[in-house]
Amino acid sequence: MEDPWQKAYDFAVAVARKAGAVCLEHPFVVCFIGEESVAKGEPCILTDKPTWIIDPVDGTTNFVHGFPFVAVSIAFAVNKELEFGVVYSCLEDKMYKARRGKGAFCDDEPIQVSDVKDINQSIIISEHGTDRSPEKVTKIFSTMQKNLCIPVHGLRGSGTAATNMCSVATGAVEALFEIGIHCWDIAAGAVIVKEAGGILLDVDGGPFDLMSRRMISANNETIAKRIIKEIEIFPVVRDDVPIEKK
Amino acid sequence: MEDPWQKAYDFAVAVARKAGAVCLEHPFVVCFIGEESVAKGEPCILTDKPTWIIDPVDGTTNFVHGFPFVAVSIAFAVNKELEFGVVYSCLEDKMYKARRGKGAFCDDEPIQVSDVKDINQSIIISEHGTDRSPEKVTKIFSTMQKNLCIPVHGLRGSGTAATNMCSVATGAVEALFEIGIHCWDIAAGAVIVKEAGGILLDVDGGPFDLMSRRMISANNETIAKRIIKEIEIFPVVRDDVPIEKK
Repeated sequence: MEDPWQKAYDFAVAVARKAGAVCLEHPFVVCFIGEESVAKGEPCILTDKPTWIIDPVDGTTNFVHGFPFVAVSIAFAVNKELEFGVVYSCLEDKMYKARRGKGAFCDDEPIQVSDVKDINQSIIISEHGTDRSPEKVTKIFSTMQKNLCIPVHGLRGSGTAATNMCSVATGAVEALFEIGIHCWDIAAGAVIVKEAGGILLDVDGGPFDLMSRRMISANNETIAKRIIKEIEIFPVVRDDVPIEKK
Repeated sequence: MEDPWQKAYDFAVAVARKAGAVCLEHPFVVCFIGEESVAKGEPCILTDKPTWIIDPVDGTTNFVHGFPFVAVSIAFAVNKELEFGVVYSCLEDKMYKARRGKGAFCDDEPIQVSDVKDINQSIIISEHGTDRSPEKVTKIFSTMQKNLCIPVHGLRGSGTAATNMCSVATGAVEALFEIGIHCWDIAAGAVIVKEAGGILLDVDGGPFDLMSRRMISANNETIAKRIIKEIEIFPVVRDDVPIEKK
């Protein structure tokens, strides 16, 4: 069977590795595409056209400090559906990748989400984000505290959404949720989590929407739904809102 | 000059590596010394005698889940002074070590704390601990929120005190604080941080006390003192309180 996107996929894997090497060698010569194009005022709207959704350096703060989670995140969507995702965790030198319907891999080994169904046996990962407005921060901490006290085994925060998604995909953690992330942070990870057997939902339990800036990804629905009960939602502006309305 | 503790140090390095390998291969055949001896009711009192302070698996929850921070922590004290510390981060395969007065190393390369003096440019690492009593958890989250909103670049949590200490020592983060840790979690890291140019203090700004279960380690005093202002202290029972009084 003809595979129309194989070349693009191979290219993405090669680029992710190269971009990882470049970003480690020449930290300030990296070309930002996703975030930068939006910053330049270009629209961030997912159409039916084949579309690259890229974050050349996810975990910029970690990168500047040398905290070991920095990733190149490359996803590719066609007809608004994610066809594949590649996350290269530069400092760990781990290449995560997945094509729709073809499984998820880390360094070519198949990966799978955890089979834990008991929330009390789970580790959750989440982030504080970059917005420091008091009411958002208060809701974020309140949500984290309520989730910790379900109780769960632990809460973690690595500072990089793309590798966090991969931690769900490998089963290192059961779930990740965040409000305020951008499409380029999670597009590649979304394919990887799904292909590793996990699920993606909106933080209100509805269907996952890549442009909504809200996401929970988990190993299964039982875990996701239990966490969702404790999430205090705060408003964020969608990624695809035209810049003049932001 | 004669070096009375060189052999013990070499032994610690070799044991840490071996224990790391064993713990990855045979998760449940690990011999717990620090925590286990205390759990058995043996006293946890630092005397002038040469003393090993060991945590064979720091980050047990991470270990069970496969989250990539699990460490073997081995320290050695003489006359109540820490002579050396060895932390082997098993899944990263990184060996951190330091001897008093002789610098700190990661895989034999010298390491040094960050030179950031501006708290707004810093990353802080801390943990939620294992105690889920509401008033403690509330103080922990309140402290984290106030520190995040100083503001700092970010808050992280990896789930393993020993590797957190090493993150301070390498400059990946500026500071780590925690109330509720045990001496075996931090004894080795304490030497490594100090030898990497960092400092250790009590969370009230007083001198560091290994048995107090309270600690802030930081790249410098400016950073440490700023964080201390935001720490809400809650009571914990010292490690060296006789078990019948606990």
